[in-house]
Formats: sequence, structure tokens, C-alpha cells
Amino acid sequence: MNIENYVAGRWIAGTGAGQPLVDPTTGAELARASTGGIDFAAALAHAREVGGPALRRLTYGGRAQMLRRIADCLAERRADYVGIARANSGNTDTDAAIDVDGAIGTVGFFARAGQKLGDARLIADGGLIRMGKDEAFQALHVMAPVRGAAIHINAFNFPAWGLWEKAAVSLLAGVPVVAKPATVTCWLAQRMVRDVIEAGILPDGALSILCGGAGDLLDHVAEGDVIAFTGSADTAARIRGHRRVVERSVRVNVEADSLNACILGPDIRPDAPEFDLFVREVAREMTVKAGQKCTAIRRVLVPASVADAAAEAIAARLARTPVGDPRNPEVRMGPLVGRDQLAAARDGLAALAAETGTVFDGAGSALVDADPDCGAFLFPTLLRANDPAAARAVHEVEVFGPVSTLMAYRDADDAFALARRGRGSLVASVFTADPGFMADAAIELADMHGRILLIDASVGKASTGHGIVMPMCLHGGPGRAGGGEELGGLRGLAFYHQRSALQGPAARLEAIAAGAARIDA
Amino acid sequence: MNIENYVAGRWIAGTGAGQPLVDPTTGAELARASTGGIDFAAALAHAREVGGPALRRLTYGGRAQMLRRIADCLAERRADYVGIARANSGNTDTDAAIDVDGAIGTVGFFARAGQKLGDARLIADGGLIRMGKDEAFQALHVMAPVRGAAIHINAFNFPAWGLWEKAAVSLLAGVPVVAKPATVTCWLAQRMVRDVIEAGILPDGALSILCGGAGDLLDHVAEGDVIAFTGSADTAARIRGHRRVVERSVRVNVEADSLNACILGPDIRPDAPEFDLFVREVAREMTVKAGQKCTAIRRVLVPASVADAAAEAIAARLARTPVGDPRNPEVRMGPLVGRDQLAAARDGLAALAAETGTVFDGAGSALVDADPDCGAFLFPTLLRANDPAAARAVHEVEVFGPVSTLMAYRDADDAFALARRGRGSLVASVFTADPGFMADAAIELADMHGRILLIDASVGKASTGHGIVMPMCLHGGPGRAGGGEELGGLRGLAFYHQRSALQGPAARLEAIAAGAARIDA
Repeated sequence: MNIENYVAGRWIAGTGAGQPLVDPTTGAELARASTGGIDFAAALAHAREVGGPALRRLTYGGRAQMLRRIADCLAERRADYVGIARANSGNTDTDAAIDVDGAIGTVGFFARAGQKLGDARLIADGGLIRMGKDEAFQALHVMAPVRGAAIHINAFNFPAWGLWEKAAVSLLAGVPVVAKPATVTCWLAQRMVRDVIEAGILPDGALSILCGGAGDLLDHVAEGDVIAFTGSADTAARIRGHRRVVERSVRVNVEADSLNACILGPDIRPDAPEFDLFVREVAREMTVKAGQKCTAIRRVLVPASVADAAAEAIAARLARTPVGDPRNPEVRMGPLVGRDQLAAARDGLAALAAETGTVFDGAGSALVDADPDCGAFLFPTLLRANDPAAARAVHEVEVFGPVSTLMAYRDADDAFALARRGRGSLVASVFTADPGFMADAAIELADMHGRILLIDASVGKASTGHGIVMPMCLHGGPGRAGGGEELGGLRGLAFYHQRSALQGPAARLEAIAAGAARIDA
Repeated sequence: MNIENYVAGRWIAGTGAGQPLVDPTTGAELARASTGGIDFAAALAHAREVGGPALRRLTYGGRAQMLRRIADCLAERRADYVGIARANSGNTDTDAAIDVDGAIGTVGFFARAGQKLGDARLIADGGLIRMGKDEAFQALHVMAPVRGAAIHINAFNFPAWGLWEKAAVSLLAGVPVVAKPATVTCWLAQRMVRDVIEAGILPDGALSILCGGAGDLLDHVAEGDVIAFTGSADTAARIRGHRRVVERSVRVNVEADSLNACILGPDIRPDAPEFDLFVREVAREMTVKAGQKCTAIRRVLVPASVADAAAEAIAARLARTPVGDPRNPEVRMGPLVGRDQLAAARDGLAALAAETGTVFDGAGSALVDADPDCGAFLFPTLLRANDPAAARAVHEVEVFGPVSTLMAYRDADDAFALARRGRGSLVASVFTADPGFMADAAIELADMHGRILLIDASVGKASTGHGIVMPMCLHGGPGRAGGGEELGGLRGLAFYHQRSALQGPAARLEAIAAGAARIDA
């Protein structure tokens, strides 16, 4: 099977042998993808010149209705997507649900949120502002959709959600999307795009997809284009520093991996309900998607007095997690996405070895219905840092798999300092029954984390979890996490708009404001 | 005179001969500046570790009071600053007022605006957000001051305003400033910093200044630091692509020069009051600060039918502008900032020559009290594009001096298309009596301009002008203009804060929200 690209309004197969897509459970080749021969300049031009104007002729409300139809279209075909996720990503049903239902839910969320913006084509940011004594001359800030293309470069771990969490916001804004999913798992993204295109929901040029290498795509960006990237810090650096990107001040939003911390409060003893919530969350975060989530818990911070108990309890849960072929309903964790990732994870484990001991690594366990020599399997692995404050690698090397490191801390300040050693993370979580510690943690960690999950027993069940990105909340983080901001409800629209200060006759500005939508955060 | 640096809490003279600062009217050397021997890593560390915590112990309201005292301190010493601006920048009184009073006014504005944030140390961004059925578990976005240092790299044309429009917002946010003014005019910036430091208004480490080269400053940035840069696109590209900046996801805000357009509406005949307002504005923008403003009008778009009349009227005003030594009160325009700039402006004029004719260039005029062989003088020069749509250089080459190009347009669409040829500008202005054209212009130009000034006769007197940056309005622009956002009232604080989504027990989040400040745009 050759996975086709959709650019400039037509389906086109790339030239050459292409890159193979494999089933990571068996190693079998499923398909090939290539962007060979694609005219990237023409792809961007078509999006800008055909897709953009067509999208912007609609109102926010009109585009929100389009999103509603996309969500419905995808929901109808859910079973197909779960099948592809299982085959090409080694997903369990739970893993596939996070990716596929997460995608559909996020599109649905922006359909609802966008509906509130109504029949407007412009957003007013605040009200009229006086600048001097004369009330006749005032100012008004507006946000206008950018008139370029949105280039969305996504990671391999969420082919469905990664595509749609970006595309939903961009399309609502009126900005055409050129999506480039990671090639190894692009099948699911491409199938979803194909279904939406075939359903005739979108105007020509509104959504394109590249399945394969990005070629010289970035050489053709222009002012008004934006780039949203999820992936490694190395690739992010290449995009940010790209000559043409810099020259045209093309906005770049980056979500990179991070060494997210989960903190058990100093108040929590092993018999507290928060202890159990914490242990479940750590074990779940380590094993869901085989730990291949940018938001997964990588560093587990516990008071020194309960470190042994925590290690034991987490290890006990990990030992009860069957690993193997996700087609077997008893399996709770599948393979990594491929043998390259497995090799990278093993390299990461080797880098952590000098600073850690092993609490649990599944030694002696057997795979369910799977051959370790063909599949990309790694048993969940809990390490323990010998000296967390002195250690470096455990705060710097992310093993992108089912691997976390337990670290004992002395007191609250020590816990916060260790969490900050991640140098900027997407998320931290805090399990405590102490309102004072909870508030301190929020305030001490906010500047270095894009999201902070605060859990006590009262919200243990209602919690959406450490690793789940909710569309109404900001997704992104400073420093190592890339410095980006996505989602956050309608806040996410800002990236796809240019803010502009209008200064002029108050009556004229009032008329513009009256016709504009408003974002109430 | 050796202009000292203030870093790590002490005054320190740079080693070596240093760079000369000259009087651009006479060519006389005034002082020398050098950062030789400065430990840039220690300078940043002191700001982060001493200045930041001290600032953040204060509340927003407390920091606003500090700004009030800074504004008062500077206002008392205004005469000194005007004298330095005249000597080192060749400023007329009007030029100096824009820089010095602009600085004081901007600090005063943020003192008042910041006062409204009250006794808080955190900003709540919106209210509580439900994420599911259970109301006990909700989300709240907060903005926390970043804990790094703010590096402010400024341009030579506004040593006073450029310093304080950035520093006021940063200090209000609780983020310590390391300022690096352009060396050629750093004397004024340094004097203002010296006065504020000597007045004991700021805690140790809150404000540092480097007078000379930036050395290896950027090699020492870290996550949590931010860089705000005003200057050339070339330097901006070097900063944006700097290895360490990219590696640590250090936020970079860029204001670069742009080819700002002023549009005379298709409805305006030479006898309309808007025609006169337009002519005055173009002539003023060309001559104030000898045209050395990032926001100055570079492209003058007029309906073809009135192009001759507009050319004549602007030229007549330019002919009545005495150029020479700004110490002479009759002089209305002084020199460029130095002979390097003069040479660059002449190169720019040469680049435009093939596409333009000369309407006015002061040929035959004499300088007042000045020697053209010593000073950096250029007479105001109005060019006219032969074929604006076919031309390239007139839309791409900015002559950073008293130079603008008149362009005739056919109709409204042609005018908008020509304005957009600037590929992203800080500001555009529109002079029209037609409300329909005014609204169309705002909507058609907003995505490519950070600010749009809309003028009819009713606001001709109250207008703050095309080139003046008001603290309550956004300053910045997309594409060529750098893609930055500064000021905009309290919107400007966002750059110095990390947004973070807190998820947790609604009661705990309500308590955090109750103690936080709110920005009402």
C-alpha cells in the first residue's frame, strides 16, 4: 500500500521506494509513504491562495459548524481508526481511545466553543481605550486571522490527536492547514484527512497532508505563515533557526518532550487515599501508550520517609501489567512504536544507569502473544535515583518509553528544586491533602510548567489525569518543553491571528467592535 | 569621559579604548564606552538570583509605586536628558521631547496601570473552567512572572524611550532588566539608569546596563530568561538563531524596521481637510528625529488623480524645514545620528534611484549653523515611484532617514495591495472622510500591521500621530517588522509571565484566584 499525499487539491503518490510503516508488534511492513516529487511551494501557495480566502469568507460560527461535521464524520469511522492505531502504533484499546477519541473530542470542543463567536470574521480584544482628553479619538485592539498557511508538523505518538488538536484551532481561525505527521505512523492521520476530504466538508485548499519527508517545505514559508511543531528539541532548533523562517518572522510554536515530575506531598503516608491515587497515576502514566507521551511522568518525587513504600507499591502495579500483542484483550501495554525507538530507549536507560538502581524492569516476565525478536517491546521500568540532587542525567535524559525514575526528597523546598531541575516541563502533578502545600506547589512551579495537576482525595475520581491534554487548558511549557502554547480553549486562536491596534474616531471603532467576536477567557 | 557599565550591583568601567560617542552635528567626540572585561555570565546571574527575588517579594502594586518614583526621578532631571539628546543624538527640542517625555510618560502610564493590579503576585487569566460533569474538579489559568532575567537590546534612535518602554513593563512584572542600549547613543540611557540607581528606588540587581558590545552575553541565557530586541532584521536573525537561545527556548521579541505606509483615501481631493492633515503628517514623519523612527512613513500612497498635488504640497512643507544645528531654535531638523548612518542612507537612496524620481531633496538649501563636512546631515528627500506595482526596492529597502517615496495607486484594492508589499509593518495610516473605506482599510490591513491609524477631520487635532507609540496600544508588527508585540497596556505583561493551567479542587483554585490580580484588556 502506498500512502498518498493530498496537496494543491489532489491526491498524489510520492515517487521512489518511500519509507516503510511497520506493525511494531510483529515487525511486518504495512505500507510505504513518500513525498518524493511533491512541489512544496505549490502546496503552500494553494493553501494560502485558495484555502485561506475560502475559509475566511465563512464566519467563526460557520467554521465551527464545519468542525462539528468533521467530528461527526470521524466519530462514524472510529472503528477503522482504532484498527489502524492497533496495527501501526501497537496501541491497546485504551491507547487508541486516547488518540482517536481525544481527536474527536477536541474537534467537538472547538465546534462548541467556536459557535459562541457567532457571525463575525474578526475578534475584538478588549474595549475602546482613551488615549488623551479628547474622547473622539480612541483605540481598539482587534485580532485578524493571518493570511498565510499553518504548517503543522507532528510527532509519531499521537497521529490522530496531534493532527486535530492543531487543525481544529487553525481551521476555526480561518487559517488553512498543511499537516505533516511523523512518517512512521502517518497512516492514521492520512486516513482521517482522506475521510474528511471525501466527505466534502472543507473548501478546497483548507486541509492538505504530506506523508513522508518535509523536503524543502520550510524554504517556501512567508510572512503570515505559522509553524506549529511537536517533537524533539533538535528538530525544533532546526526549524527555529531556519534561515527563511527567521527572515520572514514566521511564528513557530514548539512542544518538545520534557521530564515531567509527579510529587507526592510531604504530608502523605502510605495509608492515605492520596497515596493510592498517586501510585495508580504513576503506574498508569508509565504504561499508557507504552510511556510514549510528551506529558508522561518521568520523575517521581516522594518524601524520603515513604520512598520504599512508594517504590514497592508502584512496582507491584507494574508487575500486574501484561505486556504484549494489543490484539489480545488481556494485554495492558503494547510495544514501542518501532525498533528505532526501542534502541533509543535502551540508550536512554544506559545513560541513566550510573545514577540509578532498578526497582522493577519486568525481568523474568514473558510477553503475551509476541516475539521479543520481532516486536519493539520494553517492559515497564522503574528506576530509583541514588542521589537526586547530585544526579544530572535523570533530570536531562528522557527515555521515551515506559520508564520513570523515583527520587526521594527531604522537604518541600527540595521537592520544588528537584522538579525545577527539568528546566521547563509541560506538566507537573502534586498529590497532597494539605491545602497549604498544594497552593505553595502551584505558585512555586507555575513559571516552569505549562500545567499543574493538583490532586487530593476529593478529586481523585474526577481528575482527568496527569498525562491527558484537555482542550480547554493550555498545552505547552517553557524551556526544555519548547516554550509553546497550544489549546487553552479559545486562547489557542491567538497563534493564528495578528493582533493590531486600531486608532481613530471612536464612533468608527465602535462600529468595528460591534461586528467583531469576543473571546471571554 | 568613560561611560561606565552597571552590572552585578556595581559601576565598572570597561577595559580597552572603547567605542567613541560623537556629536553628529559637529563630529566631535563626546565620550567612550566599552564592555571590555565585563563578566556577562555573572551579570545575568546577579539579575536572576538577587534582583528577581527582590522584585517578586513586592506585589504588582508595590512595583507600580516604584515606577511612579522612577518617573518622578526622571522628570526632575529632564533638562539634563534633553541636553544629552541634543549633543549625542543631534535632537531638536521636539525630537528630544518624543524620546525623553515619551520615556517618562510610559513609565508613568505603567505606574498607574500597575496600581490597579493591587497586592497580588500572580495574575489570574480568566475564571474557573469546568472540564467534566463533576464541578469539584476544575481548571484555572494563571500567569506567573518568569524567574529569569530580561535582556533588553535597544536601537540607537530612542535611547530614553527604548530603554524605559521595555523596562517599565518588565519591572512591573517582577523581572529584572539587563539593558544594552545601542553604543553610539548609550550616554542618555546610562545617565537615566545612573540617576535611578543613585536615587535608591530599585532593589539590588533589578536594573543593570551594558554600555558597549554585547560580548558573549547570549551564551549565558537560560530557560526563564527573555530577550526583547529592537533593531535591524540581520541582528534579529542572529539572536533568534543563536544556539543557546534556541536550545533553552528563550523567548525573543523583535521589533525591526518596516516600510510603513500612509494612505490618502480615494475620496480625498486637495481641498478636503483630510488632505491637509495628510500632508502635515507625512512631512512631520519625514523630518521628526530626521526620519530615524521605526514607525516613520516610508511609503506615501495617494490616488493617481491627486498625486501631483500631494507631491507639490509635501515638497512645499519640506522646503520650509530648516535643517542644521539643533542648538539653534529655528532649526526643525537635525543630523542623522552619525556618519555611518549617513553613508547607509546614501546607499539606500542609490538603491531606490532606478525605480524613482526625485520630488524634493533640498538641493540648493543651506545648513543652519552646521558644516556638511563634519556633521551627518541629509536634507529631507521625497521620491516618487515610477511604477509602484512593478517596483521592488521601494517596498523592500528602508532608508533610515528623512526619506519617503510617493506612490500613485489606481483604486482601493491597489492601495491595499501596495501597502501589503511591505511584507509586514509596524503601522499604517489612512486619511479618509469615507467611513466605508476606513473600515475596509482596517480589516484589509490588520493582519499585516501591528497598528493602524485612521484619520478623518473629526480627529485631526486629537490624533496622537502615525509615528508615536502610545503605551496603551500594541507596538510591533508581523513579518518584516519582526513579529513582536510590546506594550498594549497590561497586555505587555504576558511576555514576562509564564501562563500555566492549574487543574484541581475548585475550592483550592478559587482561593488562588481570589488572591491573584486580573488584567482587564
